[in-house]
Amino acid sequence: MYSNLYNMVLKTRVEATMSTVLFLSVGLLSGLISIFIALYIYWDVMRLDQGNDRMKEVSALVEEGAYSFIKVQYRILAIFTIILAILFAIIFREFGIPIAISYILGSLASMTAGYIGIAVATKANRRTAAAAATGGLSPAFKVAFRAGSVMGLMMAGIALVGLSSLYWLWNFAIPDEFFIVVPRGPELWEIITGFSFGASTVALFAKAGGGIYTKTADLSADLVGKIEQHIPEDDPRNPAAIADAVGDNVGDVAGTGADIYDSNVAAILAAAILGAGIDLHFSPPVPFGLLPLVISALGTIASVFGVFLVRPKQDQDPGPILNRGTYITTVLFAAFTVLTVMLLNLSLVIAVVAIIGLIAGVSIGFTSDVFTSDRGVAGFKPVPKMVEAADKSAANLILSGYSYGLLSVLPSVIGIVIAMVVSYTLGALLGFGEWEGGIYCVAIAAVGLLATNGMVMSSDAYGPIVDNARGVIEQAQAPKEAIVAVDKLDASGNTAKAITKGFAIGASAISVLALFAAFIESTDTLNIPGIDGLIVVNIADPSVLAGAIIGALVPVAFSAILILGVERNSERMITEIRRQFDEHPGILDGTTKPDYDRCIAIATSGAIRELMPGTLIAITVTIVTGIILGLEALAGYLGGAVLSGLILALLMDNAGGAWDNTKKIIESPEYTKYEEGTEDWHRVHDISVTGDMVGDPFKDTAGPSINTLLVVISLTATLFLPIIAQLHVWLLALF
Amino acid sequence: MYSNLYNMVLKTRVEATMSTVLFLSVGLLSGLISIFIALYIYWDVMRLDQGNDRMKEVSALVEEGAYSFIKVQYRILAIFTIILAILFAIIFREFGIPIAISYILGSLASMTAGYIGIAVATKANRRTAAAAATGGLSPAFKVAFRAGSVMGLMMAGIALVGLSSLYWLWNFAIPDEFFIVVPRGPELWEIITGFSFGASTVALFAKAGGGIYTKTADLSADLVGKIEQHIPEDDPRNPAAIADAVGDNVGDVAGTGADIYDSNVAAILAAAILGAGIDLHFSPPVPFGLLPLVISALGTIASVFGVFLVRPKQDQDPGPILNRGTYITTVLFAAFTVLTVMLLNLSLVIAVVAIIGLIAGVSIGFTSDVFTSDRGVAGFKPVPKMVEAADKSAANLILSGYSYGLLSVLPSVIGIVIAMVVSYTLGALLGFGEWEGGIYCVAIAAVGLLATNGMVMSSDAYGPIVDNARGVIEQAQAPKEAIVAVDKLDASGNTAKAITKGFAIGASAISVLALFAAFIESTDTLNIPGIDGLIVVNIADPSVLAGAIIGALVPVAFSAILILGVERNSERMITEIRRQFDEHPGILDGTTKPDYDRCIAIATSGAIRELMPGTLIAITVTIVTGIILGLEALAGYLGGAVLSGLILALLMDNAGGAWDNTKKIIESPEYTKYEEGTEDWHRVHDISVTGDMVGDPFKDTAGPSINTLLVVISLTATLFLPIIAQLHVWLLALF
Repeated sequence: MYSNLYNMVLKTRVEATMSTVLFLSVGLLSGLISIFIALYIYWDVMRLDQGNDRMKEVSALVEEGAYSFIKVQYRILAIFTIILAILFAIIFREFGIPIAISYILGSLASMTAGYIGIAVATKANRRTAAAAATGGLSPAFKVAFRAGSVMGLMMAGIALVGLSSLYWLWNFAIPDEFFIVVPRGPELWEIITGFSFGASTVALFAKAGGGIYTKTADLSADLVGKIEQHIPEDDPRNPAAIADAVGDNVGDVAGTGADIYDSNVAAILAAAILGAGIDLHFSPPVPFGLLPLVISALGTIASVFGVFLVRPKQDQDPGPILNRGTYITTVLFAAFTVLTVMLLNLSLVIAVVAIIGLIAGVSIGFTSDVFTSDRGVAGFKPVPKMVEAADKSAANLILSGYSYGLLSVLPSVIGIVIAMVVSYTLGALLGFGEWEGGIYCVAIAAVGLLATNGMVMSSDAYGPIVDNARGVIEQAQAPKEAIVAVDKLDASGNTAKAITKGFAIGASAISVLALFAAFIESTDTLNIPGIDGLIVVNIADPSVLAGAIIGALVPVAFSAILILGVERNSERMITEIRRQFDEHPGILDGTTKPDYDRCIAIATSGAIRELMPGTLIAITVTIVTGIILGLEALAGYLGGAVLSGLILALLMDNAGGAWDNTKKIIESPEYTKYEEGTEDWHRVHDISVTGDMVGDPFKDTAGPSINTLLVVISLTATLFLPIIAQLHVWLLALF
Repeated sequence: MYSNLYNMVLKTRVEATMSTVLFLSVGLLSGLISIFIALYIYWDVMRLDQGNDRMKEVSALVEEGAYSFIKVQYRILAIFTIILAILFAIIFREFGIPIAISYILGSLASMTAGYIGIAVATKANRRTAAAAATGGLSPAFKVAFRAGSVMGLMMAGIALVGLSSLYWLWNFAIPDEFFIVVPRGPELWEIITGFSFGASTVALFAKAGGGIYTKTADLSADLVGKIEQHIPEDDPRNPAAIADAVGDNVGDVAGTGADIYDSNVAAILAAAILGAGIDLHFSPPVPFGLLPLVISALGTIASVFGVFLVRPKQDQDPGPILNRGTYITTVLFAAFTVLTVMLLNLSLVIAVVAIIGLIAGVSIGFTSDVFTSDRGVAGFKPVPKMVEAADKSAANLILSGYSYGLLSVLPSVIGIVIAMVVSYTLGALLGFGEWEGGIYCVAIAAVGLLATNGMVMSSDAYGPIVDNARGVIEQAQAPKEAIVAVDKLDASGNTAKAITKGFAIGASAISVLALFAAFIESTDTLNIPGIDGLIVVNIADPSVLAGAIIGALVPVAFSAILILGVERNSERMITEIRRQFDEHPGILDGTTKPDYDRCIAIATSGAIRELMPGTLIAITVTIVTGIILGLEALAGYLGGAVLSGLILALLMDNAGGAWDNTKKIIESPEYTKYEEGTEDWHRVHDISVTGDMVGDPFKDTAGPSINTLLVVISLTATLFLPIIAQLHVWLLALF
């Protein structure tokens, strides 16, 4: 009898260990495959023709500029990481060393991914330019897309390899008897939270710092170049032209990549914490804690296939081919997930919610597109209406962009709410109780949404590469046909880009909701006298309400600080550009070369300087609110931050996108109301440039940085939870 | 033994009845005094000189225009009120008739107050103009301020008389045996919620409708007049000049008045509901349910004194005199409250929290002033920075206004949080338990904040009257000295106005928090099977979180609809103004009189048409969310709405105010960077006009309407609570 029971327990343990090994292997291998394929594509792209000397020269300037930004940023990140790691090693006592190591690896992984993304993007622009100049549309598209996919597949792979190998390390390689103690189950994942925290802090630097950099350069280049001196965009005479091109790389390529990457890591982590809780309480046959890794692995493999299927025939419009790649990836992922779930003999609910997440992400992306594209939908055409508003006055254009931006919040957020409520409700069918099963399914929806991030990022990153190639062609004075080709590519890239932006917000929103659940679930296992069981976050309790209100203020303050940072920084740069034009009249004639480096230096140092206060304030306020008002208030704080953060992020992203496209329409041949070059056309165009300038820091600095901010503060709360709880209890004892 | 107990109970009852009569009498009498004094001042102002014929003529046009707006608006309000009253009579079953009667009286009271406000304002402008033309600064100030105080005292009085007499009616005049059933205690107050609901729906119409009206006229007049035709503001050649002047009356005078009035009624109501709950559970000697009426009465009496003490000597700057009036009112109110609390032998906590509320209101007002005044504070000068930004580009000005608007949210909201937490914590000292005592004190803080509303509104309403008088003088081509005098008055009025705006937001925020508490408290007394006890609003519960997110969307959608409404409406009006200028070139030469009436008609009908959808959506979504997701989710919904509503309201109010003042600085002699009239000056000035035009619907339409919206949806939830709860239980039973 006893021996039977012993055997049963042993069998369950062995089975559990076996599936742990199996799941980890799937995660690790898929990640490695993705990385190797990315490296292969990188090598393949590098072999291509780099274009004529002028292209090489211009592109090299951009490349150097990007590296100089990266160098400054990474030096500061390294200091930041080392200080925090030492802090973690001390304050987390027996878990200090593992958390510090996880954190350092998380930062390093994220920095590596960002570096590779920028490296390939800046090397690919001249190759794309060369391909456009010699082969036209399709070859140029192929180069740009493949270069973009290097970053996409690399980041998806690094997330998988990082998380699986860390789990492997703490679970198997380092036994309990070793010099440090590593807990098992959900607490092991809480150690790996350090990895995610590293990813997110680096992402916040990349996104917010890159965002300030790119908009500083863009705003200044536009103001002095386009408006004051009436020279075209990307004109080599503009001292800020290279800084502007660098900005596209550090902001759009590395920034957006980091944003999706860190949401992906956070979603897997949150689902893993919640799944490990189920494993602990219900001892099911499958380690639910590791299932999220497997789902993400399936999405990554599907992305690899998707990337290889994007192969345009000669002169074919790249838009549909890109969409086909996305559809195939989606279908493959869905099929893989259903098959895996059946193979593992699990409830199909798991597969269903993963697919719900995916659908939600894509739908949110499409609603963003309605509000920002030049088409709209039947009877509701925001951007065309804004084109009309621009004909009235700048104020009308600003007001309508702002209003449509507010309206655009609705469908996206309602989509997120529906995905959350449906996933939660379906979760009850898993049989682990309404709460446990429900929140696990919300987290799985987040993982499902982000699983195909390899493909999503690939089709997003190609846009800025083409944008840069355009700059290279323009500055290298290459033939007009090459510009026509990349302009076509740019247009097809815009829809993908708009969808990705919405997707990124949806992804971070659902990931943050999952993290919110993981935070609350983690309060259950705290071993601190005075705190018992799952907290109840009753907003009728004034301290919780106070927490929620303070939390809601964080994204408000953060966006204001970033936008004012862009303004302050561009003030310095505008002064510099004007100085160059004034002191060297030869620049305008094309006889004197402008001093690009000084603009790059200003943008770089200013970006780093302006992003620090917001970041530190956000982290500090999170911890202090928890210590003073308690865990319930801290949960309220996270809820409040999500609420206002979502609204502000969507408002700013979509209003900014709509202003951008309003300008693009007016500049395009389809705008027929006034003939280009006439006085009326100039009036309307100037107004649309004002709208675009307002929208730039909205959509490329403040808006998308809020996504990452929300992840960072949620992870801060989760990571520091034991310490916050302990200090709060001590604080209460003082009074 | 038994007879002793019986005597004790009887004694308590008699005492309670006596203090009920006493408290109601204080409320009623103070209200009546305030109303009579307002009527006396009205009669006194009416006797004054109406100026020359041209002044009379212009002013009569404005007066007629205002009445025609009022007529259209009140006709629709009457229909709306009758339909809702019938609905209430049916759906609230045994309480239907009393609720319907309370509601009708609430609407009527609010409409009367609004009517008187507009009547006195439109009659006072020509008298102010005449006083300025003949006597200069001080006589003009006296007329304008006294006219403003008619509305201030009238509204404070009507709130007191309405609430006291309704309580008297239901509690004493109509015995239980009568044909309708009237409950006692908290439920009696829930019937009087109908009165507050009437006040708030009328306020929403007044504020949002008036806001759309005034900005339609203002935007259109500025665009075609100032920017296109380069004629000055208020120029009689502008076909929209009269509509613009009418807008100042219906938007700024009646709208702001209605906003503060409805917050005041709601605050008293919320405190009364919570106090009546204490009376029921703890049978204390004082009817805590009626104490809020007494506190409000004390503030009203203090305001009467304050108003009479505002008496400037010849040519004295009116600013300090106005401030002195406010300070005296505040000190008197504090003294009255402390004395009354001691006389009633109550805990001083009650007086302390009432004063905390008052201090919070004034502080919030002052922080608004920092962000919108031309001074700022040491080292932090938003508006002067914006003046510099205007020199760079329109985009810089918009971005900095938006960012400072976001930052301005912080101190105000933190002030509200501190007032809430401190009042709640002090409430525990009352001895009725932490929750009951705490939330009662939060509500008392709201009542205290609003108690001196008579004085606050008096100093606010004088601003628009002066503004209008300026228009009358300008159009009547009166001597330049008269304009100088009213310009000085206008400048001193601006600070008062900025403070009042912040005050109004703080007031509605704390009132809404009190209503939120009253809503939750009311769930305790519901007599519906399936719902028992106080609800717990756990935002970790996905349905509550979903409710919170949906709630947060309501102010977002509402503001977007209002701003787009202004744009659509001004589009119609711009077309009309341009048509008049085109078809009648004589208008510009001053030989043909423009057709003012058509502009007025467009503004009126458009305003009503544009405000309906937002209002109906807000009410419907509130009820439907409650029915589908339940009471907990509905509470979450209210919380979410407050969170996003506060942020948006403060952002838009303060950004708008800052843009307005940026323009004013550039127009004033203190702006010395460019000489007035030079090309550079015109460039910067045009940019500042753009900023002001963006800010107009922010600060005068959408921003302040959100205050009222929050009160309306909170009251909707409280009023419909029993029905929502019942329908939700039935809906659950269906599945």
